[in-house]
Amino acid sequence: MPQSNAIPKATVFRLCLYLRELTELSDKDIKTVSSSKVAGKLGLTDAQVRKDLAYFGQFGYPGVGYHVDELIDELKRILGTNHMWDVVLIGCGNLGTALAAYKGFDRQGFHIVGAFDASADRVGQKIGELTVQSMDELAKTVSRTGSRIAVICVPGESAQTVVDQAAAAGIRGILNFAATAITAPPGVVQNSVDLAIRLEQLSFQLTKTKQPAKR
Amino acid sequence: MPQSNAIPKATVFRLCLYLRELTELSDKDIKTVSSSKVAGKLGLTDAQVRKDLAYFGQFGYPGVGYHVDELIDELKRILGTNHMWDVVLIGCGNLGTALAAYKGFDRQGFHIVGAFDASADRVGQKIGELTVQSMDELAKTVSRTGSRIAVICVPGESAQTVVDQAAAAGIRGILNFAATAITAPPGVVQNSVDLAIRLEQLSFQLTKTKQPAKR
Repeated sequence: MPQSNAIPKATVFRLCLYLRELTELSDKDIKTVSSSKVAGKLGLTDAQVRKDLAYFGQFGYPGVGYHVDELIDELKRILGTNHMWDVVLIGCGNLGTALAAYKGFDRQGFHIVGAFDASADRVGQKIGELTVQSMDELAKTVSRTGSRIAVICVPGESAQTVVDQAAAAGIRGILNFAATAITAPPGVVQNSVDLAIRLEQLSFQLTKTKQPAKR
Repeated sequence: MPQSNAIPKATVFRLCLYLRELTELSDKDIKTVSSSKVAGKLGLTDAQVRKDLAYFGQFGYPGVGYHVDELIDELKRILGTNHMWDVVLIGCGNLGTALAAYKGFDRQGFHIVGAFDASADRVGQKIGELTVQSMDELAKTVSRTGSRIAVICVPGESAQTVVDQAAAAGIRGILNFAATAITAPPGVVQNSVDLAIRLEQLSFQLTKTKQPAKR
């Protein structure tokens, strides 16, 4: 497999989209699919689909296309979601509580094994099957469960402190929901979720449909 | 301006990223920037930045690059965020409550003017400055405020019903946080937010850093 930094981020993002499409096909018991079929549903070209997959090997069969379940397995192996990841959640306000209940995480291979909050008021509260723990217990839980990923949904002003605590506890990947930029320590990768970006894309679509050219 | 369907979705997404980079530069009082500087911070090529912008016109100056504040204005005009959008929020559980407080929306030009829930228990509750309204009042509020965008964070099983109600009330753009696929009625555009995708990208990065090739 090529080195991570040789693969464009956009390719990795599209692999996730392909995986969703294929899972939907598999749920409908569809066995094979062409690159143009996958591409069409996502508004891409079939050349793009083939190019993205070609980074990782040769998966199609001439005259057949892709075997759906086989390609699902390959994509999960590539994305590292062929096993469950144990994840800790830091910050148990409304967003953290919502994320703890979000069914999409488990479905894609991410299981929340611990929930943490700096506020004494929240420690001990139940969120689904989890009990909110104090930040003092983070390192012990990370070590016990072998968690490598933290989902962080604390207020912006606490985000960097929490990132540093998580890294010191052994976390190696951070998903940041705080609406502020963070710096991941060396050896730690991070992704930030910007909830407004999809609204901006929507705004673009709505603005364009107001143009006379479209009518 | 070209028709909306001629612009790749990935370009629109990158315009949002450029806008964030430029806003950060403007906050630091930086007046001009090159395409390669913008590209470098986002892990793109400068050719990509120039190509994306070229769909909409000629914005750079030879030997100077882009005027930061001028390009911010142009990007906002292109994205339709040069004015505030009034937005209604439907579904006031943990996620809806978190989104109502999310500072990133206002900052990018989206102002939540109404919050709605189907549950009688929630109607009348305060979320920040908003009071949760009954779904019966949706059409009236949409009409009074001229809102065209709805952010939907209801349970998956209610999502399609709510989408249809919103469309009937005059909503033309839907941001769907429900972890389920919805079908937007004709004349309505929709984007779904998949909170797990960023975790999968993180998983990919962590999986790759375990490969010996990387060391």
